[in-house]
Amino acid sequence: MTATITGEDLVLTRVRRALDAASRGGLPLRVAIGDDAAVWHPHAGYESVVTCDWFLEGTHFLRDRHPPHAVGWKCLARAVSDLAAVGAKPRCFLLSLALPLRLTGSWLEKFLQGLRSASRKLECPAAGGDTTRREQVLINVTAIGECRRGRAVLRHGAKPGDVILVSGRLGEAEYGLRLVREGRGRVDPREPRLRKHLYPEPRLAVGAWLAERRLATAMMDLSDGLSSDLPRLCRASGVGARIEESRMPLVRLAKSDAPRLDALAAALHGGDDYELLFTSAPKSVAKIPSEIAGVRLTRIGEITAARKIALVAPDGRYRQLSELGWDPFRHS
Amino acid sequence: MTATITGEDLVLTRVRRALDAASRGGLPLRVAIGDDAAVWHPHAGYESVVTCDWFLEGTHFLRDRHPPHAVGWKCLARAVSDLAAVGAKPRCFLLSLALPLRLTGSWLEKFLQGLRSASRKLECPAAGGDTTRREQVLINVTAIGECRRGRAVLRHGAKPGDVILVSGRLGEAEYGLRLVREGRGRVDPREPRLRKHLYPEPRLAVGAWLAERRLATAMMDLSDGLSSDLPRLCRASGVGARIEESRMPLVRLAKSDAPRLDALAAALHGGDDYELLFTSAPKSVAKIPSEIAGVRLTRIGEITAARKIALVAPDGRYRQLSELGWDPFRHS
Repeated sequence: MTATITGEDLVLTRVRRALDAASRGGLPLRVAIGDDAAVWHPHAGYESVVTCDWFLEGTHFLRDRHPPHAVGWKCLARAVSDLAAVGAKPRCFLLSLALPLRLTGSWLEKFLQGLRSASRKLECPAAGGDTTRREQVLINVTAIGECRRGRAVLRHGAKPGDVILVSGRLGEAEYGLRLVREGRGRVDPREPRLRKHLYPEPRLAVGAWLAERRLATAMMDLSDGLSSDLPRLCRASGVGARIEESRMPLVRLAKSDAPRLDALAAALHGGDDYELLFTSAPKSVAKIPSEIAGVRLTRIGEITAARKIALVAPDGRYRQLSELGWDPFRHS
Repeated sequence: MTATITGEDLVLTRVRRALDAASRGGLPLRVAIGDDAAVWHPHAGYESVVTCDWFLEGTHFLRDRHPPHAVGWKCLARAVSDLAAVGAKPRCFLLSLALPLRLTGSWLEKFLQGLRSASRKLECPAAGGDTTRREQVLINVTAIGECRRGRAVLRHGAKPGDVILVSGRLGEAEYGLRLVREGRGRVDPREPRLRKHLYPEPRLAVGAWLAERRLATAMMDLSDGLSSDLPRLCRASGVGARIEESRMPLVRLAKSDAPRLDALAAALHGGDDYELLFTSAPKSVAKIPSEIAGVRLTRIGEITAARKIALVAPDGRYRQLSELGWDPFRHS
């Protein structure tokens, strides 16, 4: 049994010890957790990229269902995915953590193990943070990255005629979430159908490859679902889109699950996949391989001048794609 | 009456509109709120500084007592104070905001007005953020600043014999908090005794002046109270301290409040002042004026080799200073 510790400084000490270990051999930071602020040296010729991301008990995870190790992994992976989404390489992160006193023992330890695994895998060392006490677990992660100057890919560059592509398969995280909702008790982190839901992998290599070669005109990560995120990219670019249903790289459902789950709906409206959605000019698209760093890239449609999002069924019929993805102000 | 808006994108639009206005004429950022991440160009020869700070309903403010305008001001001022604490100049900030649907109208508008005032006053434009829905208002601010390379002042440089100084008067925020606790209903934001509690001002000019001239050996901001924060600086530096009670720049209490409030206790243990606590080598201290940018600087004691924090009373008697400042894991 792990002893419960008290005092903000002791909680900070525990966080620091766990995360400093992950930072060893990492990038040179002048300060780690505990000082007022983290100080680092930006690389000459690079621009800095920063993003922050909520991960809240009850909203983004369930404390009695989700393993603390997966909570630790996912809170960092989600934030780093926003760096992948502009083509940046991670530099460091800050952890803001609020939790009840009774979770400062074993729960915190497992959470930090998961966070440390992600920190190592994503090469993103901890640089600081803030902790406080709260009845529910509240997490906010700030991720900082770098991009060669002028190479960051934003949402607003898509033009009519550009090809729309996505990485990976869509709906995999939604599949896992559905299984979690159907089950009871603490989730088994080794269950392969839950992998994408519990341990998403930001597509850093794909984003950086595209940004470095200037092959993407607009890019973002799929966090709320294609039907919510694609309209955002289109609004930012002042364009519309046409998606071919038959081209969508759908989640593969196990035979036992297929009768009651809809793979297309999961792929269109399911959130949390953290795949990349990007557009490429017709003259550039041939230079994009079908796979980068083991991650498949699929053409799913085309940017249009008409500011609508149309879905083309296999029989050629069009329908307007409704925004049914995750929206905290619409969903309860 | 302000209409309640729904949908994350609409909340983001409101936040962006309010904060973009504050950013006009500000520093060049390639992206504002709404893209996956903010992108900015670090200045050559400068190091980057980043910090994040919780500001939570029920923990750091009371929604039915504190005016939303003051909540907006203070959440940014607190985070920027961590930049002042290392001597950095603000560059931009990110806002993570969670709030209930019913507060997305008038409450949000006033909150954003306060945040915008702070953003302008502190020359720290908004660069991005994340919003979600939640029963209670949760705020996390990431502040990013810059310092000439090698000039950031951290907590670990204090040496025995160094003089200990503070900016401003201590206990002013605690005084305001006590008055808020004694009162009822929504607080009057124009009450002068509440000014420091509601609208703290990060000591940016003082911090930058000291850092630029390398006159401080260690520095931090006073957020939890001198009796908690001074031991942190001492632990980081591997030293102790001796404070002269008679030198402490105490809060000035109104005559009507003086009989029931203890100014020394407020100055020693009260949090939220956001004044600077710093140390200076004996050979440098003469170069430090008694005032910088209208803010008084006071010598309150000396760093010692013995790792204790001693308080010297006016009669010359020593006592150990107990850590009675704010600690969320000790206080309920």
